[in-house]
Amino acid sequence: MTGEMEIICVGNELLIGKTLNTNAQWLSKRSTATGIAVKRITVVADEVEEIASVVREALQRKPRFIITTGGLGPTFDDKTLEGIAKALNRKLEINAKALQMVKEKYEAYAREKRTEKVELTQSRIKMATIPQKTEPVPNPVGTAPGVRAGLDETILIALPGVPSEMEAIFEETVASLLKQASGDITFHEKSIYADNIMESTLAPLIDKVMHNNPDVYVKSHPRGEENKPHIEIHFSIKTKDTEKPEEKLQKAIVQLSSIIEKSSGKIFNENNQTDD
Amino acid sequence: MTGEMEIICVGNELLIGKTLNTNAQWLSKRSTATGIAVKRITVVADEVEEIASVVREALQRKPRFIITTGGLGPTFDDKTLEGIAKALNRKLEINAKALQMVKEKYEAYAREKRTEKVELTQSRIKMATIPQKTEPVPNPVGTAPGVRAGLDETILIALPGVPSEMEAIFEETVASLLKQASGDITFHEKSIYADNIMESTLAPLIDKVMHNNPDVYVKSHPRGEENKPHIEIHFSIKTKDTEKPEEKLQKAIVQLSSIIEKSSGKIFNENNQTDD
Repeated sequence: MTGEMEIICVGNELLIGKTLNTNAQWLSKRSTATGIAVKRITVVADEVEEIASVVREALQRKPRFIITTGGLGPTFDDKTLEGIAKALNRKLEINAKALQMVKEKYEAYAREKRTEKVELTQSRIKMATIPQKTEPVPNPVGTAPGVRAGLDETILIALPGVPSEMEAIFEETVASLLKQASGDITFHEKSIYADNIMESTLAPLIDKVMHNNPDVYVKSHPRGEENKPHIEIHFSIKTKDTEKPEEKLQKAIVQLSSIIEKSSGKIFNENNQTDD
Repeated sequence: MTGEMEIICVGNELLIGKTLNTNAQWLSKRSTATGIAVKRITVVADEVEEIASVVREALQRKPRFIITTGGLGPTFDDKTLEGIAKALNRKLEINAKALQMVKEKYEAYAREKRTEKVELTQSRIKMATIPQKTEPVPNPVGTAPGVRAGLDETILIALPGVPSEMEAIFEETVASLLKQASGDITFHEKSIYADNIMESTLAPLIDKVMHNNPDVYVKSHPRGEENKPHIEIHFSIKTKDTEKPEEKLQKAIVQLSSIIEKSSGKIFNENNQTDD
C-alpha cells in the first residue's frame, strides 16, 4: 500500500540529541487527526546531498504528502530548499511572491521598532529563493515562507523548524489540504491501564480481542517493570464516522477489560501511576 | 562519506504522535558523546515489510552501526526481529541462550512473587526467537533480550523500546563498542545566547567565524520571534582530545561574541528567557 504521508525533519541538532523532536510528534498527531496516516519519519543532517537523497527516496514511495520541517532560515546551514531543488532536478530562483512576503515582514519590523528600513541582504533574500515551479506559503508568525510543490503523485510542503512557525503554517494552510484528501475518515483512540498482569500474559488476550474486532488496533505499552506490571493499553480506529468508530472502540475495550479481570488483572480508566 | 550510525525506531505510537520520541534523542546524545556520529534516524510502523525495507536501505548505506529500538516484546505487534530476519534473508529460530535469559527472568519473578512457576507460553518464547546467526544481549532490567548481529560492514543491535531497558542495555553493552570504534575522538559543545540581533543579521557573522575556525560548527536556533529576537548559538567540535577542542571552541565563542556586540547585540552565557 502506498503511504499517505512521510515527514522529513532536517537538522543536525536532532542527530546530536541536542533537541527533542517535538515537531515530528506534533505533525504526526495533527496529521493523524485529519485522517491522514504518517507512514515514515526521517531525520537527516543539514547537508544538501543527504536531504536530496531522503526526498528522492520518499518520492519513490509515492506518498500523497511529504512534509519537511527545518532548514528554511537565513543561515548557511539552512539547506532544505537546496536539497529539495536537487531532488527535483530544478534550479533555485528568487520567487517574486516570496520576496514580497519577506520584504513585508522586515518593513513591519522596522515600523514596529521605529528603526530605519531593514536592508534586503543576501541572507534575507535567501529565504525567498525557492525551487523553480514551487509556490511560497505565507508564514503568519515568522519571516521565512513555507514552500509548496505539486508533483506527479505527491504534494511536498516545506515548513520551518521553529515550532510556532511550523504550527501556524500547518493550521493556516496544510490542515485543510489533508482533510480534503482524507475525506470523511477520522481517527479515534482511547487508553485504559492494567495492573497485576504481565505483558506476556496479556499478549494472547489482545490477539483474541483484535480477532473479534477487526477494525480496532490494540497495542500494549509497558509502563512499569515486568515484575511490577503496569501497562497502558491503547485502542485506536481509523474509519468513516458513519461506521460508528466510538461504539466499535468501546466494544473492544469492554471485551478486553472483562477477560483481563477474569485473569485477575485490575483495570483503570485513568493512569494511576507516574509513567517512567 | 559512509555514515557512522543510523537509528531505526519501530512503533506505530510514534507515527500517530501518541509518543514523543525520547529514545531517539537519548540514543543520539549518548552515541554522539562516545564520538560516533548519528547520520540518520528513521521511524517506521509495526509492519514486517516496512521494517525489513528500512533495515535493508540502511544496510546499503554501510553505516558502522545500526541501532533499532522497539518491537522486541511478547505481543503480536512486536515485529522488529521478524523484519530484521527478512532484511538479512535469515530464518527466525529459538535461541538457546536467549531462552535461558527469558526463563531466568520468569523464575526470578516467580520467586519474588512467591507464585507458582511461570509457564513458558508462546508469547514468552517469542522473546527468545531471534534471527539465525545473531546473538542475544542481556537485558539487565527487563525480560526481552537485545539482539546483536555482526554483518559484513555493520554491527546491527536491536534494543527494546521501553526507555529504562533500552538505556540499561546500551550502557552495559553498546557504549563500550561505540567508544572502541571511535577511538580517541570526542564531541564538545557549548551554547551562548544573543538578544537584540536578528538571525538574518547574525547569518553572515557566523559564516565569518566558521571560516576562521574550520573545526568548529556553529548553528543558530531562534528561540524568540524575528521582531523580538532571542537566539541560541550552539558551538560544537568533534575531534581528538590532543587537538585541544575546548580551546578551539572557546576561541570561536569569543570571536563571535565580540562581533555580535559590535553589531549592538547582547550576549548571555546562560539562557535568560524561557524557550518557546
